[in-house]
Amino acid sequence: MKLYDLNASPNARRVRIFIAEKAIDIPVQDVDLATGYNKTEDYLTKNILGRMPLLELDDGTCISESHAICRYLEETYPNPPLMGRTPVERAHVEMWNRRMELELLHPLINMFIHSHPMWKDTRTQIPDWADVCQRHAIETLGWLDRSLEGREFIATDDYTVADITAQCSILMGKAVGVRVPETHSNIAEWWGRVTSRPTARA
Amino acid sequence: MKLYDLNASPNARRVRIFIAEKAIDIPVQDVDLATGYNKTEDYLTKNILGRMPLLELDDGTCISESHAICRYLEETYPNPPLMGRTPVERAHVEMWNRRMELELLHPLINMFIHSHPMWKDTRTQIPDWADVCQRHAIETLGWLDRSLEGREFIATDDYTVADITAQCSILMGKAVGVRVPETHSNIAEWWGRVTSRPTARA
Repeated sequence: MKLYDLNASPNARRVRIFIAEKAIDIPVQDVDLATGYNKTEDYLTKNILGRMPLLELDDGTCISESHAICRYLEETYPNPPLMGRTPVERAHVEMWNRRMELELLHPLINMFIHSHPMWKDTRTQIPDWADVCQRHAIETLGWLDRSLEGREFIATDDYTVADITAQCSILMGKAVGVRVPETHSNIAEWWGRVTSRPTARA
Repeated sequence: MKLYDLNASPNARRVRIFIAEKAIDIPVQDVDLATGYNKTEDYLTKNILGRMPLLELDDGTCISESHAICRYLEETYPNPPLMGRTPVERAHVEMWNRRMELELLHPLINMFIHSHPMWKDTRTQIPDWADVCQRHAIETLGWLDRSLEGREFIATDDYTVADITAQCSILMGKAVGVRVPETHSNIAEWWGRVTSRPTARA
């Protein structure tokens, strides 16, 4: 196996933390966007969208999309389980992972793309959309804090991929200036819990 | 089990087609947004986001998010498999389902929300964002057509949830005026194949 990585990407980080939690040793190639390798025919054959992360298996099979990579690794390296232990748990992990991705990570990434100067030449930036996304992310932090009342982790009693996605979202938020308000003590406690794991800096 | 449904929602339709393919008999309650039931404390306890579809199990456990509902049903009613038969197939179904959702269905839903008069009082509409989303969806149709060359279905050799998500996306596209160009013959053939299934109108 080989992982095509993109160090700065919050999605790639999700996969790196997942791999670190599983303690799997996978050779990594960090793709340098400046070389344009991800837009070459060679890479586009692996992933038609030219994005990282991407997991290439020994027979050449390629799996892209962070959550699809995690799903493959969950099946082939089942311990520790990071996607739930029962059908109901697995459904709740899927539900919470999607909530964290669609209601928190994606709005924050959109906020970044539509407001940061580094994207001005490559994307149509819409500042009003950045504002809507910022409000969306802040609203999510509100109901996430309420949902974490009395809970150690987001989706089940164990640390799961939903926590990983939320962790990477909070880091993205710090990068774009959306911080967890001090009043959100449940998120603060959870944050202390997840960032004290040895894998948090993967 | 009981399904809280929203007839007009493309996400709810994904779940309805999935259930029809599995031939499961689940009582359905179609939620009428006009009554505001989905914003009552009773419903928000089931889904803090107040959205449909939602699957309530007999012990009161609630599962929201369309794909999480499908995942639960795939585990509890494994035949016919709609999420792949092997770890690699299941990873590819996850990958393609996400591509169809994030690169096609979501841009089309955003285009609808940001351009249609029915949302003007409830959402901040940004017409420029609707335009970007329209271009995004049209671009996706281009590489989807190339990817379907020589294939019967989107993710594996079988009909899967990735086809269901794509089907619902194409229907959403028709509703907002983004039609598959006539030159995209691979999509046209696939569309004929999936819409001839008895479940297509679920």
